[in-house]
Amino acid sequence: MADSRIEFHVTATDGAARRGQLTTRHGVIDTPVFMPVGTMASVKSLTTEQLARLGPQIILNNTYHLMLRPGIDLLEKLGGVHKFMGWNGAVLSDSGGFQLFSLAAIRKIREEGVEFRSHIDGAAYFLSPETSVGIQTRMGVDIAMAFDECPAYGLSHAEIEKSMLLTHRWARRSLAARTGASALFGIVQGGIHLDLRKRSVEEIGAIDFDGVAIGGVSVGEPKEEMFDVVNFTAPLLPADKPRYLMGVGTPEDLVNGVTAGIDMFDCVMPTRNARNGTLFTSFGKVAIKNARFAADDRPLDPRCSCITCTTVSRAYLRHLYTNDEIAAAVYNTIHNISFYLDLMKDIRQAVASNSFGSFREAFLSRYASGGKDA
Amino acid sequence: MADSRIEFHVTATDGAARRGQLTTRHGVIDTPVFMPVGTMASVKSLTTEQLARLGPQIILNNTYHLMLRPGIDLLEKLGGVHKFMGWNGAVLSDSGGFQLFSLAAIRKIREEGVEFRSHIDGAAYFLSPETSVGIQTRMGVDIAMAFDECPAYGLSHAEIEKSMLLTHRWARRSLAARTGASALFGIVQGGIHLDLRKRSVEEIGAIDFDGVAIGGVSVGEPKEEMFDVVNFTAPLLPADKPRYLMGVGTPEDLVNGVTAGIDMFDCVMPTRNARNGTLFTSFGKVAIKNARFAADDRPLDPRCSCITCTTVSRAYLRHLYTNDEIAAAVYNTIHNISFYLDLMKDIRQAVASNSFGSFREAFLSRYASGGKDA
Repeated sequence: MADSRIEFHVTATDGAARRGQLTTRHGVIDTPVFMPVGTMASVKSLTTEQLARLGPQIILNNTYHLMLRPGIDLLEKLGGVHKFMGWNGAVLSDSGGFQLFSLAAIRKIREEGVEFRSHIDGAAYFLSPETSVGIQTRMGVDIAMAFDECPAYGLSHAEIEKSMLLTHRWARRSLAARTGASALFGIVQGGIHLDLRKRSVEEIGAIDFDGVAIGGVSVGEPKEEMFDVVNFTAPLLPADKPRYLMGVGTPEDLVNGVTAGIDMFDCVMPTRNARNGTLFTSFGKVAIKNARFAADDRPLDPRCSCITCTTVSRAYLRHLYTNDEIAAAVYNTIHNISFYLDLMKDIRQAVASNSFGSFREAFLSRYASGGKDA
Repeated sequence: MADSRIEFHVTATDGAARRGQLTTRHGVIDTPVFMPVGTMASVKSLTTEQLARLGPQIILNNTYHLMLRPGIDLLEKLGGVHKFMGWNGAVLSDSGGFQLFSLAAIRKIREEGVEFRSHIDGAAYFLSPETSVGIQTRMGVDIAMAFDECPAYGLSHAEIEKSMLLTHRWARRSLAARTGASALFGIVQGGIHLDLRKRSVEEIGAIDFDGVAIGGVSVGEPKEEMFDVVNFTAPLLPADKPRYLMGVGTPEDLVNGVTAGIDMFDCVMPTRNARNGTLFTSFGKVAIKNARFAADDRPLDPRCSCITCTTVSRAYLRHLYTNDEIAAAVYNTIHNISFYLDLMKDIRQAVASNSFGSFREAFLSRYASGGKDA
């Protein structure tokens, strides 16, 4: 760590699945890892102290949202994202690219970068490889992402290729802008076109990034097409760098992503679903508002040792949710994040003990019961 | 405790202020005490585990709300309010009377009791001294309240007298219905009319209740009139029973209530204000959305040792609040409840050390600065 931004070592493999350790300025991260999303420097519904007790080693912050509010000047003045939210673990930030292309911001894409207007007050902003990496560096994150264009699903091969080539030029400019203490990951694009994915890996994989991500997935394509891309692309990525599958996914997706050799994941699913009353359990997803839980005094998931599952019942969780109590979001978020983190821990143990195949089979079979055992 | 529902001892006095201990089936409560309000069996925005770490010894649940949702049959089946919310401390419930008269429920008052319709679905319900005490007993609370009529501010002397006499008849019926393990407090009414308050104390104080409350205050009357009632009534209450001032109040109100000899308080103010971004500090109330906090990296209240004040800044709290993050309610509630509990602890120490007068003067002077020092 003395002379590098991060260090990464694969400590065990089981098929293509990898067990590893990623060392950052804010601690060691056991991979494969799931990163809870803290869009506005807050993992929604939780205090940072509650989050820390759940034990994630790294979280994600969104550059786009934080550059608008509170703004990078203020964030830097306040000591960066760690100090701002009182978080001592590692932080990875996205580059803002995904939000620019998914939030339908009023934007204008040029070779130089993207002009856009805030979705809040219409104020004008500009993001480019240089400004995105600069902002992420000023946020003080442990890992920054290269600025990329994330094309929509359904564009033509020619359109995806054109976008990918822009992302490649921006990747080199992003790396040239890496001057601070933040590590920088490159992003492979190419849509659902495997020939483009291959060209993108050859280009991005050859650049001196600290890690490589698969971007442009989970943007509306069918799940099968997504995993065609992941299964094709992941093995082509540099073996000595962490591999990050952006914006994914469901518990099954995490298991299947690890199977393909992915080391890092992030997704709003556990936190967003928590607020919507959809809870992940060892026997599948459940909608806590369901009337069958009204008099159910059992823990949400008897296999889970989180505060939610060890202190209150399904009936109480349903009561809070159906009555719009804020505590419903808190209890549900605690559980869903715990479930994701526990799943990753189980995955890591299975890979380390060379039993990932049987773990995967058992998990997917039990989870596919879809809550019928609940 | 072997042969009584609660025990109460005054352990020290300082002027009219009393330091005491109230022993319940769920622990000993140091008085004067503030009871956070958990209307729907949830102190809003907090998990029960978070609440417990803040250290209140007793909380309040609302009979009216809980009899509608989840309903008393279900609540009893699920083991009562303690088990339902995973709370091991003491619980006091109101009788439902206040909600019936303040929520403008569709209601019909008769000698027998009150017919009303749910504000949720219009379903018909009936509350009487017998059903209210019965429901509170089935909820398993440590302390139940007699069923009373809480008249609005501004009624004539004759109207208040008529209402008070109904409350007196209902008080005797409430006591006759006390058959379970829950203690039962009587409620003194009489509006702002001191002659009626005197008659009500004579009536209610002479009945074998486990404690006596001053009800019908904080219903719209000017603060000065409220304290005219409290200062007049409190010294008339039985000295050997706990004295409870219902629905009060601000930090100043708590200090002034203790001055009059009150032992117990409850109010939604710390939790409701937290959700509205109004925070109580040792130097007064502050509105956290205020722009002057945007770049303020100091703790909300440097005198406070709660998780909010020891882990994040005013700037972060403002950021969360202005961006509608759920965590804003959580952080703010943690602080406001901590502030109220710390205030009561300071009050108890001052009474025990016979320095309450100087404590009161210093507190009110500092607090009256209204956040100008923030």
